[in-house]
Amino acid sequence: MHRTKVKVVTDALDANNTIAHANRHDFDHAGVTVVNFMSAPGAGKTTLLERIVTELDGVRVGVLEGDVAGSYDADRLSALHVPVTQLNTDAGFGGECHLDANMVRSALHEVPLGEIDMLIIENVGNLVCPAEFRVGEDVRIMATSVTEGEEKPLKYPLMFRACELVLVNKIDLIPHLDVSLDRILHNIDSVNPKAETMCVSARTGEGIDAWKTWMGDLVRRRAGAPA
Amino acid sequence: MHRTKVKVVTDALDANNTIAHANRHDFDHAGVTVVNFMSAPGAGKTTLLERIVTELDGVRVGVLEGDVAGSYDADRLSALHVPVTQLNTDAGFGGECHLDANMVRSALHEVPLGEIDMLIIENVGNLVCPAEFRVGEDVRIMATSVTEGEEKPLKYPLMFRACELVLVNKIDLIPHLDVSLDRILHNIDSVNPKAETMCVSARTGEGIDAWKTWMGDLVRRRAGAPA
Repeated sequence: MHRTKVKVVTDALDANNTIAHANRHDFDHAGVTVVNFMSAPGAGKTTLLERIVTELDGVRVGVLEGDVAGSYDADRLSALHVPVTQLNTDAGFGGECHLDANMVRSALHEVPLGEIDMLIIENVGNLVCPAEFRVGEDVRIMATSVTEGEEKPLKYPLMFRACELVLVNKIDLIPHLDVSLDRILHNIDSVNPKAETMCVSARTGEGIDAWKTWMGDLVRRRAGAPA
Repeated sequence: MHRTKVKVVTDALDANNTIAHANRHDFDHAGVTVVNFMSAPGAGKTTLLERIVTELDGVRVGVLEGDVAGSYDADRLSALHVPVTQLNTDAGFGGECHLDANMVRSALHEVPLGEIDMLIIENVGNLVCPAEFRVGEDVRIMATSVTEGEEKPLKYPLMFRACELVLVNKIDLIPHLDVSLDRILHNIDSVNPKAETMCVSARTGEGIDAWKTWMGDLVRRRAGAPA
């Protein structure tokens, strides 16, 4: 039984990569920079996005919202008048705990790629499986909340290793917690020394300007590069 | 492809239930009450357990720790001199995001069932898949942190519906957050009106006595029931 299981997973990842390349081709054709945005449930992804989706100078942002059920995050973001597409994983995918390339592909006909410069894919809140499935993105960013404690990078190393940028969010709560920001940053560095880290608070806005610059540069680098 | 996928999932759940029954038989034989304890990463499961594992009058508690990698939580709990068994899902299971009945079964020979009255299984931090796999437990308890926001029950309804008891943790942080405890409780009730809820703070100890009574009653009910 165990051998069968491994085979299924391998096939699934191979198929995923094939479809991720097809997505990548479509994104390149449209000239759209794509971010796969991941975190544990409740780390503040949507609130972080509310801070930037209309604030990136000259960059038109669209959002693809992945959730098991509901459209709470999509409703919050579409109130800001950016194009938002909701992708639920509870029907047709059996309540999946992550987005994969095929799920993203199934939603692409609803995403106005010709009208945006950047697509941010807000993945299902989960620190394990989303890191295993490329969806055709340019970069992977994760948010981790200081309220989750200091040892999350050590317990979920694959997620932290998968990301180019780690946003350490909710730093306004540090005075009310028994955690050390230095130890969180040290633990991120110990599993992924190449990751960039930014300490931010979606609630107060602290550190958000640096993230906006980072996101804008991402699009400008693509625009300057050969198609 | 989609039809194949559904079949695999069905088979996996059937196999899981068969093995969960075998686990249940072993727990009954040993007279051990079993709790499947679930939450998102960083909701405070281990800190909650530190508050109670040595504090349940006349109840000898053992812990089975499920993590993708590491033994950070197990080390914290074994410092309290309770029997703790670490189960990592990264090797041999392919980095699974949940415990299933077979993983628990593979660890049972390390659990001193004859020396404990209650086994608490701390599942992998994840609000999706752990709810889909019974492991032979008597009850399922989840912790949700107020820092995760108000809408988690609506976005992850299966998890909230699967549990008999929901611990709403970190209530000491409410004054520093833009969330309403009433709305969190209302949203839990809207997806699972049968769930009991307790508002607690593992940090300050608020509400923990009520949880200890609940856990003790669970063992005493089993002891009073026919074997």
